[in-house]
Amino acid sequence: MSDKLPTTFLSKLLAATRRQNSLLCVGLDPQPEMMPIGNVFEFNRAIIDATRDLVCAYKPNLAFYEALGVDGLVTLKRTVEYIPEDIPIIGDAKRSDIGNTAAAYAKGLFVYFGFDAVTVNPYLGYDSVSPFLEYHDKGVFILCRTSNPGAKDFQDFQDSQGQALYQRVALKAKEWDHAGNSGLVVGATYPEEIKWVRQNCPEMPLLIPGIGPQGGDLEKSVRYSVDRKGERSIIVSARQVLYASKGKDFAQAARQAALKLRDEINQYRSIKS
Amino acid sequence: MSDKLPTTFLSKLLAATRRQNSLLCVGLDPQPEMMPIGNVFEFNRAIIDATRDLVCAYKPNLAFYEALGVDGLVTLKRTVEYIPEDIPIIGDAKRSDIGNTAAAYAKGLFVYFGFDAVTVNPYLGYDSVSPFLEYHDKGVFILCRTSNPGAKDFQDFQDSQGQALYQRVALKAKEWDHAGNSGLVVGATYPEEIKWVRQNCPEMPLLIPGIGPQGGDLEKSVRYSVDRKGERSIIVSARQVLYASKGKDFAQAARQAALKLRDEINQYRSIKS
Repeated sequence: MSDKLPTTFLSKLLAATRRQNSLLCVGLDPQPEMMPIGNVFEFNRAIIDATRDLVCAYKPNLAFYEALGVDGLVTLKRTVEYIPEDIPIIGDAKRSDIGNTAAAYAKGLFVYFGFDAVTVNPYLGYDSVSPFLEYHDKGVFILCRTSNPGAKDFQDFQDSQGQALYQRVALKAKEWDHAGNSGLVVGATYPEEIKWVRQNCPEMPLLIPGIGPQGGDLEKSVRYSVDRKGERSIIVSARQVLYASKGKDFAQAARQAALKLRDEINQYRSIKS
Repeated sequence: MSDKLPTTFLSKLLAATRRQNSLLCVGLDPQPEMMPIGNVFEFNRAIIDATRDLVCAYKPNLAFYEALGVDGLVTLKRTVEYIPEDIPIIGDAKRSDIGNTAAAYAKGLFVYFGFDAVTVNPYLGYDSVSPFLEYHDKGVFILCRTSNPGAKDFQDFQDSQGQALYQRVALKAKEWDHAGNSGLVVGATYPEEIKWVRQNCPEMPLLIPGIGPQGGDLEKSVRYSVDRKGERSIIVSARQVLYASKGKDFAQAARQAALKLRDEINQYRSIKS
């Protein structure tokens, strides 16, 4: 019997952040045409072995596994099982559906695959998100301001008081977060939006994709996203790490790229006064 | 060699609508705790055999298959393969992701699973939808006004001119629809919104969930959603048909429920003058 508090996604994330001194999250997004070896599981295993002491989380995006059909999903499950227990895994699924259907997705992602956290799309409103939030020990990252150019099409839509949709999403997410297990996704390509979100949601972990090929501003993204202790920010890199080399040295090159990124992120992570 | 135009989702839908004299789409959403038999594929096969001459489309929602893990996805693929070639299949996946990732989802859904159409979530904007639209022979139903209570949380968000987000989504979807392969999802629980969408998007097929247990208004939903020929509307029923009986007669009961629904829908389908 233990007196310890139950492990939650947030406690696991903060423990990994401190243990590895890292905000870096490696996106496990296998694209066969870019991979130096043909077997997706072997590729993932080599990347994990090369980076497991450098990351605060891993984030497989389900799209790349679904594109490979049933075999891809078998590989995803094996990959989740292979990742060390003390590193949180974020299933980047961006699911959205109504009540009982959202509950089926939550079951698939949290129970069958065993993710510690997932991403969800808020367009369908509260009852599409709440079946995920009910898993109190799991994390739920709600898409707020995404990193892509099309983000502006709807997320910048403003009401008569000048509040943008992404801001409404952030404030609603905070209102819904009764168990303290919610986070937000804000792209590194929109640092001013990160700043607004952090100021308005000081406690929430922020998941930040969009550095590297997408052109996000790393320094500003880190400075604006961390909390007062320099934590609760997860900076995602996929292609920069996974495909650092297309040769036989790919795992070693991935380690070097991850190490460099982790250290660069840490430079910008000074604790706020 | 044939002189016929290539088959598109819309041509397949209209052919099925006319051949079966039906706007009814059966949602293939297996929930083991409600099913009279244990095997999901056998259940789906019995439902398909009992209703195949009564529907204009089938719509499996991926959540119910993913909740069953890899076995569920094997069953989904077998189900898609079992459905007769001339009945369109809508993969209700509500996916959303940025550019290259959305392309991976599109590949998984259209190429691996072989759906004729899919549902997508518009929150991420144009570049999250365009990789689907690029499959010109496939249909892309963009979530507009969903059937659930939470729909109001964001979809009713209004700009300073009084335009709601769901209206902006409908108009953007029309603007993006260069190949004529886009449709919209509008819930039967919001008939006035269906009316607005049909008036503003006269050509688009509309996918209408929310009748039955969700309490949508069947008569208004049909009258407001059909085009001038009484077509291009797809009325979804899942639980009312699938679980019409929990006994051994479940397939026969499903047929009776589907027949009754099809005929009721047809009563409201009179051609507009």
